[in-house]
Amino acid sequence: MAPPAGKSSKAAAATKAAPEPAQKAAKTHPPVSPLAPKSPAKLAPISGVRIGAGQAGIKYEGRDDVLMAVLAPGTTVAGVFTTSKTCSAPVDWCRAALAQKSARALVVNSGNANAFTGRNGVEAARATAEAAAAAAGCRPQEVFLASTGVIGEPLPVKKITGILPDVYENTGATAWDQAARAIMTTDTFPKMATATAMIDGQAVKINGIAKGSGMIAPDMATMLSFVFTDAAIPPDVLQQLLTQGNEISFNAITVDGDTSTSDTLLLFATGKGARHNPITRLLDKRLDDFRVKLNGLLQDLAVQVVRDGEGATKLIRINVSGAESPAAARKIGLSIANSPLVKTAIAGGDANWGRVVMAVGKSGEAANRDKLSIKFGGHRVATQGVRDPNYSEALMTRYMQRAEIEIDVDVGIAKGAFGVWTCDLTHGYISINGDYRS
Amino acid sequence: MAPPAGKSSKAAAATKAAPEPAQKAAKTHPPVSPLAPKSPAKLAPISGVRIGAGQAGIKYEGRDDVLMAVLAPGTTVAGVFTTSKTCSAPVDWCRAALAQKSARALVVNSGNANAFTGRNGVEAARATAEAAAAAAGCRPQEVFLASTGVIGEPLPVKKITGILPDVYENTGATAWDQAARAIMTTDTFPKMATATAMIDGQAVKINGIAKGSGMIAPDMATMLSFVFTDAAIPPDVLQQLLTQGNEISFNAITVDGDTSTSDTLLLFATGKGARHNPITRLLDKRLDDFRVKLNGLLQDLAVQVVRDGEGATKLIRINVSGAESPAAARKIGLSIANSPLVKTAIAGGDANWGRVVMAVGKSGEAANRDKLSIKFGGHRVATQGVRDPNYSEALMTRYMQRAEIEIDVDVGIAKGAFGVWTCDLTHGYISINGDYRS
Repeated sequence: MAPPAGKSSKAAAATKAAPEPAQKAAKTHPPVSPLAPKSPAKLAPISGVRIGAGQAGIKYEGRDDVLMAVLAPGTTVAGVFTTSKTCSAPVDWCRAALAQKSARALVVNSGNANAFTGRNGVEAARATAEAAAAAAGCRPQEVFLASTGVIGEPLPVKKITGILPDVYENTGATAWDQAARAIMTTDTFPKMATATAMIDGQAVKINGIAKGSGMIAPDMATMLSFVFTDAAIPPDVLQQLLTQGNEISFNAITVDGDTSTSDTLLLFATGKGARHNPITRLLDKRLDDFRVKLNGLLQDLAVQVVRDGEGATKLIRINVSGAESPAAARKIGLSIANSPLVKTAIAGGDANWGRVVMAVGKSGEAANRDKLSIKFGGHRVATQGVRDPNYSEALMTRYMQRAEIEIDVDVGIAKGAFGVWTCDLTHGYISINGDYRS
Repeated sequence: MAPPAGKSSKAAAATKAAPEPAQKAAKTHPPVSPLAPKSPAKLAPISGVRIGAGQAGIKYEGRDDVLMAVLAPGTTVAGVFTTSKTCSAPVDWCRAALAQKSARALVVNSGNANAFTGRNGVEAARATAEAAAAAAGCRPQEVFLASTGVIGEPLPVKKITGILPDVYENTGATAWDQAARAIMTTDTFPKMATATAMIDGQAVKINGIAKGSGMIAPDMATMLSFVFTDAAIPPDVLQQLLTQGNEISFNAITVDGDTSTSDTLLLFATGKGARHNPITRLLDKRLDDFRVKLNGLLQDLAVQVVRDGEGATKLIRINVSGAESPAAARKIGLSIANSPLVKTAIAGGDANWGRVVMAVGKSGEAANRDKLSIKFGGHRVATQGVRDPNYSEALMTRYMQRAEIEIDVDVGIAKGAFGVWTCDLTHGYISINGDYRS
């Protein structure tokens, strides 16, 4: 994996598009993605975090649709958000709240994105934060918010504020699975990951949950992820860790190239489990293991989002090397990963390296046509500007039956490298997104 | 329609992706697109142009696959090409030949793109040009080339050079329909357009043919278009006319956002029908009618390519206004036109303006969320940052049944405007591109 592409202003999952579930699909409980992890991660308590969920009935019946996390005093926070110019009210709220550099609560609802809701949407966000602050005994500016679901519909905010006191009372140390389920739209499985890192020879924990890649009628994508640690890390350092980790995780995945109005990634550090001496700077050697574990956890969650990409039957990893820079490699990788022709070919079990050549070419980044090298599953299929002389159609046909496909592309210019993940493009995608009114 | 976006270096159809036919599809003669023009244009002779076709058997059996046009001495030429960094050998050849500013012949083959074919591909292009030059009695550098079809396969060039003398002998004034069919891959209909323009009170003719949007196993997109006029226009002026016309035609369409290695648009002016006095500069008032007619013809051909987009059931026109500049409006328009979520919604008959909001937001161009206005078929669905109070689901559902859908988006910033065309994304697209090896 390459180092971060150095575009720290690029927000979480800016290039991905986890679209949301058709209402019908939500009702009919679509089957769990064939790419889902075999067994979900088990998340242990994190000191300083109480978590819970409740039923507000915003859109879904008979299931939790509001998540609340309560954070110990002194919790620091970092966030990255959608780059969309039409972002949701909760995203605007979080950006402003982030300036406070401390967090005491998180409230997330599913079923309504509170996006393109005008002045009422801004008021709904404020009302939610005020209700949570009243329950948790903090200032509204210390409450972080996210919403996912239908856009353009007014958020029935009283349904949320009405249950928040009860949800607050029921928060506890263990409800991670319940929390991960409450933020699903029509994700087909809850997304969770956990890790333990050493700082100063002391263990700290990291838990994360995410949602994304389901679809919700009549609307579009949202990717949300919330990560909690009991390490003690000051907000500026936390923000840099998160921004860098995001670049090689949520910012390195795509389902269909569409960007949500609501993409939100937040990292909370309570400091309550920490016996380590204070961290003050990003390059502190004592952060090395934490950085590695955090990045691994973010990648785990990001890849789970791709595994739940709508209609996905294959997980695709694309490693680009030989580019002018890591940023150029990332652009080439996403050009391949977003190409409908590449994605449909892989869905059809076709090692169509010609379409990969096309996608490299259209990226606009420097590539040497006559030095281009392409491998599928480690088998070289194209080299030095022509098909590999040892290309075996039979070998490729066997390899392409796998559920996880790896493509290596060296563009022959310099040393820039980056890896991205995507999924295939199938009839399932068309059905989920286009058939529900037919 | 907005003025050109001012990016004259952006080549023909750089943003579109007319992918090519599955071999199977070619054999089974897929049905003509439901969006095909009711009756094909009838093209009359153009003084100074002889045209013909022949069967080289490169890939297809029992049909023409080589086009040759022979151009009178003194013919000027202009061209725009793919922006792909992995362009084909014929594109490289044409770029070099264009520097000569004169053309005596055009040779196009279907069935093999001569792309990613390395040194052999360069030699094949040269051999084709030399054979055509020998037949036509001109220099190889006055021969223009294009190839469309499989990439990565060696071009069986002797099959082409072997029949060129015969094809040359059989060129004539009338074989436009035959020529348009010879360059098809699995286009479902030949694409032709014709116009008459007045220069100095004298009529001049313009004929154009194009191919694109079919699919060819195992490879990808090519859009080719060749336009001929008997007007007398010097090469520099001709190039500027073509570059500007391309911006609002082939550069304003997209099928799936994939860019070919081979996109080529050439305009030849023989001067042989011209009784008008010499044209020397672009802003000559006497060119006004020619410019209008040329642009109309280029748009006609470009929209025919979209009408033949693989799996297309709806033609979609997207008009963006209120942007910072025409270039910004174009970027927003293509962001909408390339969004799989927008395209699948329209396939499903869903006036999903929420996905249009998303696509505006992800374009990265300035947009005022709270002034955004969206219309479907002239009916306003969103205004001032919220759903239009008069929104009628019943009205929209009726409108969305139409085969041609128009979307107007005003982003509320300034006066930049641009219009683009696309088609919907259907199960047909997935089948054509992904199913052929299943």
